[in-house]
Amino acid sequence: MTSYTTPLRDLLFVYSELLNPAVIQALPGYEEVTPELVESILAEAGKFCEEQLFPLNRSGDEEGCRFEQGRVFTPEGFKAAYAAFTEAGWTTLQGHPEYGGQGLPKYINIMLEEIISSANFSFGLYPGLTGGACSAINGYASEELKRRFLPKMVAGEWSGAMCLTEPQCGTDLGLLRTKAEPQQDGSYLLSGSKMFITAGEHDLTENIIHLVLARTPGAPKGIKGISLFLVPKISVRDDGKLAAPNGVSCGSIEQKMGIHASSTCVINFDAAQGYLLGELNQGMEAMFVMMNNERLAVGIQGLGIGEVAYQSAVAYARERLQGRSLSGTKHPDKPADPILVHPDVRRMLLTMRAYGEGNRALVGWVARELDRSLRHPDPRSRRDAADCVALMTPIVKAFITDCGFELANLGMQVFGGHGYIRENGMEQYVRDARIAQIYEGTNGIQALDLIGRKLPVHTGRYLRHFFHPVKAYLEEKENDAGLLVFVLPLAKAFGRLQQATAWLAQKGMENPEEMGAAATEYLRLFALVALGYLWLRMADLGIRNQDGDEAVFYRAKVDTARFYFERILPQTGALFASIMSGSSTMMQFNDEAF
Amino acid sequence: MTSYTTPLRDLLFVYSELLNPAVIQALPGYEEVTPELVESILAEAGKFCEEQLFPLNRSGDEEGCRFEQGRVFTPEGFKAAYAAFTEAGWTTLQGHPEYGGQGLPKYINIMLEEIISSANFSFGLYPGLTGGACSAINGYASEELKRRFLPKMVAGEWSGAMCLTEPQCGTDLGLLRTKAEPQQDGSYLLSGSKMFITAGEHDLTENIIHLVLARTPGAPKGIKGISLFLVPKISVRDDGKLAAPNGVSCGSIEQKMGIHASSTCVINFDAAQGYLLGELNQGMEAMFVMMNNERLAVGIQGLGIGEVAYQSAVAYARERLQGRSLSGTKHPDKPADPILVHPDVRRMLLTMRAYGEGNRALVGWVARELDRSLRHPDPRSRRDAADCVALMTPIVKAFITDCGFELANLGMQVFGGHGYIRENGMEQYVRDARIAQIYEGTNGIQALDLIGRKLPVHTGRYLRHFFHPVKAYLEEKENDAGLLVFVLPLAKAFGRLQQATAWLAQKGMENPEEMGAAATEYLRLFALVALGYLWLRMADLGIRNQDGDEAVFYRAKVDTARFYFERILPQTGALFASIMSGSSTMMQFNDEAF
Repeated sequence: MTSYTTPLRDLLFVYSELLNPAVIQALPGYEEVTPELVESILAEAGKFCEEQLFPLNRSGDEEGCRFEQGRVFTPEGFKAAYAAFTEAGWTTLQGHPEYGGQGLPKYINIMLEEIISSANFSFGLYPGLTGGACSAINGYASEELKRRFLPKMVAGEWSGAMCLTEPQCGTDLGLLRTKAEPQQDGSYLLSGSKMFITAGEHDLTENIIHLVLARTPGAPKGIKGISLFLVPKISVRDDGKLAAPNGVSCGSIEQKMGIHASSTCVINFDAAQGYLLGELNQGMEAMFVMMNNERLAVGIQGLGIGEVAYQSAVAYARERLQGRSLSGTKHPDKPADPILVHPDVRRMLLTMRAYGEGNRALVGWVARELDRSLRHPDPRSRRDAADCVALMTPIVKAFITDCGFELANLGMQVFGGHGYIRENGMEQYVRDARIAQIYEGTNGIQALDLIGRKLPVHTGRYLRHFFHPVKAYLEEKENDAGLLVFVLPLAKAFGRLQQATAWLAQKGMENPEEMGAAATEYLRLFALVALGYLWLRMADLGIRNQDGDEAVFYRAKVDTARFYFERILPQTGALFASIMSGSSTMMQFNDEAF
Repeated sequence: MTSYTTPLRDLLFVYSELLNPAVIQALPGYEEVTPELVESILAEAGKFCEEQLFPLNRSGDEEGCRFEQGRVFTPEGFKAAYAAFTEAGWTTLQGHPEYGGQGLPKYINIMLEEIISSANFSFGLYPGLTGGACSAINGYASEELKRRFLPKMVAGEWSGAMCLTEPQCGTDLGLLRTKAEPQQDGSYLLSGSKMFITAGEHDLTENIIHLVLARTPGAPKGIKGISLFLVPKISVRDDGKLAAPNGVSCGSIEQKMGIHASSTCVINFDAAQGYLLGELNQGMEAMFVMMNNERLAVGIQGLGIGEVAYQSAVAYARERLQGRSLSGTKHPDKPADPILVHPDVRRMLLTMRAYGEGNRALVGWVARELDRSLRHPDPRSRRDAADCVALMTPIVKAFITDCGFELANLGMQVFGGHGYIRENGMEQYVRDARIAQIYEGTNGIQALDLIGRKLPVHTGRYLRHFFHPVKAYLEEKENDAGLLVFVLPLAKAFGRLQQATAWLAQKGMENPEEMGAAATEYLRLFALVALGYLWLRMADLGIRNQDGDEAVFYRAKVDTARFYFERILPQTGALFASIMSGSSTMMQFNDEAF
């Protein structure tokens, strides 16, 4: 009952029309990345995901992963699909050409990630984490280690995993206990136990490369004494060939609410040989390269789940006959009208659409800046772009995963009772989407990252990369009569964001709990303004193109923008009031009384 | 990792302090229902549910119901728990004394339902539907049928089920096809297939009494040709003894997202003997007696799930050590502070508390009115009370189940990654809570019921039972300096509700789609104002008692009210703006473009 077609038109609309594709094509090494090339890659990727991954989504959920004597078996069909995935080269898109990658822009890979997340969220986590691990290795490993590990990882023959969490430490990594003992050959022996390790063990690849946070003897307490190590499941010789198993074992896998086809493992390190990445005690910095990558990826998972939930709900709303239109029968030939006629069903679908397409635009913007931050020849431009990515990463992670869950629930609600039945597939999206609000730093932690780290840094330098373009665009359009219905509410919402930001900057200096109390609502306020800005730009494009061949497409952009501005953006007023009420209701509440 | 203690103090606060218990005690037949009696019943009920039902909640979810050759087996322990439940007389509380019931107020049973829903949502659905079936039989069956069926049902020896849905008809019952052929003896033979029948088949009772909607030959089309029938699974002789099996069979059970321990059945009727309840072709009216009962019950399920999620989240927040307080270390003796110190965690807990306790007050109010509507000696008072119940039923159903789901999710979020793991029990609450937003009429349907049926009836007569008391109380308190921080925002939110109501009444006359487009947001606006009114009253009580023995309890009421007014009630502004933007964004959107 679920259905999915790659939203190629909308992906390309964002890539080529909303954003200027020449910006990416102008980056060194991307001269040949024409919009046509992008389109052909995405069309192929979409075909692969629709045909190979989407059909395994439901069966993977039902079967789940199986743990037997230390080994993890993925569900039926995953192994073959993964083999086809690597064979088709989908793991190599963003990889460095020196190690067998195609060296394409990150943005293209990000669009691929959206499509995979729609087709089969659980599957996507296997290759997904490898990409982040490659980035960290690329950034922090010695040339020798890169040569030894990256080619197989880029090719997807080996996968990557990220080992942070321990039973006593999740958010607070300062509490971690895993030990790394230095050896005479410069390597380390790691011992300790990690939990919640996504793709920590599975049967898809012949080796798994763990990036592990651990402490060396005598390291400072807390997060300043944490180092990052590369620890292969099976040792790798200097020539890249596999040697003996390393002291890495899987102790168990978790039974979870969702993402059943993704293995979530306890991984035990028992004097396992590892290699330091980056500097001693600077592990958090190196891990954040991977983590920031993953945080964007998690936001994109939310985008992908929202898209498939939307498409499935639309298909159901067209075919389910129930009741008659309030304005009079629309299909007298049928026993009832399709539920698409009902305003409340349309409200749900348009809410999904407004968030979904808005978020795709937001992801595209950040993806473009990510590529600029990595490749632009001018250091100042690279820094500006990196500032923007740093600012928007917690918003992409938290807001888009909140939307992913909300959209999955709206999609399920459109299905009514049939949505609650497993075989119809909608409830899986709700269960799968839910993890994205939690892992890679809960959404509450993202909000603290935005407000406590990203706002104050360099006295608000990051913020300018959002505030300036919004302000400039509003000024540019303030006399455009056709856009007035969008410009005015956005200007108002933007004013609220500016005012809340200034207030928090001041209050937070006096009392950091003021920031903590406002964080979640502030992040949402920020995100809604960001989407408002992007919807204004999309409406502008829609208006300018609504008489052409694709009138239906562009007209829908304008109409969805109207829905966003009239029915969603008003939330900013409530968020503003809530933020400005301060922390006292939370902090003065008697602990005993909870 | 989940924990639950019956919130006896708060249940009694609402029953005896917020509401005037003398109102119930003054009703004929309830003279002996003192607050002390209520307390002792609830204390016993709480003990039973904590000890017998709560421990079966997780195991029931894991094991689920089993279907074998037409029979349904409930999970291990359910049969014994149900036997103990009936033996202790918990099914008899609200039953008519003529049929073995204790004839206690509905309100007491409603508090029991909350406790059961917290302890074991799935279990509660077995006795839960029997109560509604008894009400319908009591209201519409002949004396003979009542004598034959009610004693065993009140005693819980037989259970009840409600058979409405068919594959082609859920919301739109006019499409139903099940046939009832009249027989010479005055009975009917029913044939057809029903789906999504909660407790339609199970192993807890020796008989199951189905209330079935069906059509007689030549009946008018649509819902005007539907009649209600009583159809026992096993035929019952005139003397109440069991006879041969009737033509009723279970075809399968559904695999669902949650409430795994509750059987959801396909029930096939194959020339099964049934008895007409009420008048021919008036089945909808009779069914609505049961349905309204169930809609309140479903809202109460949301309340119960929210409570156990809250309590579990608080317990976890006290024991989980992670990070340090932003205002400086609170527990230097521990490796980290408990997460209860963090503002964002407190925000989640207080949100849960503000909705949870507010909803308990709302349920209490409606429960009290329900008893008045059934027992008050003055017909005008009965009608007034019934008006109030009719008005508030869709709000209780939709808003409180939305809150139940939101609270379950917030509770799970407090647990972080551990919340996503099945064995910790929190994710079950999310899966279980989700159904309550769908069954007994989706929450969208509830919103349409409120706006399309309840508001216009008798030119707004129902509405007065909410608007008048709110207005009167605001006027009474407008010069109370201590309450000003509550009175002002409530007056503002109430003004929005009045304005939206007037606007919709006018717009809806011109175009019913305006009502449909506003319905969901309007119901939420209404509910938030209702909770504001109740929180104002609770704050007033809290302020007046905050120097006594229970200062912590009353102080928490005032503080939670502040949280509600400062951080939740502002949503009414956004909802108002959204409602007043009208239906055009939804209705003018091109169908093709979805």
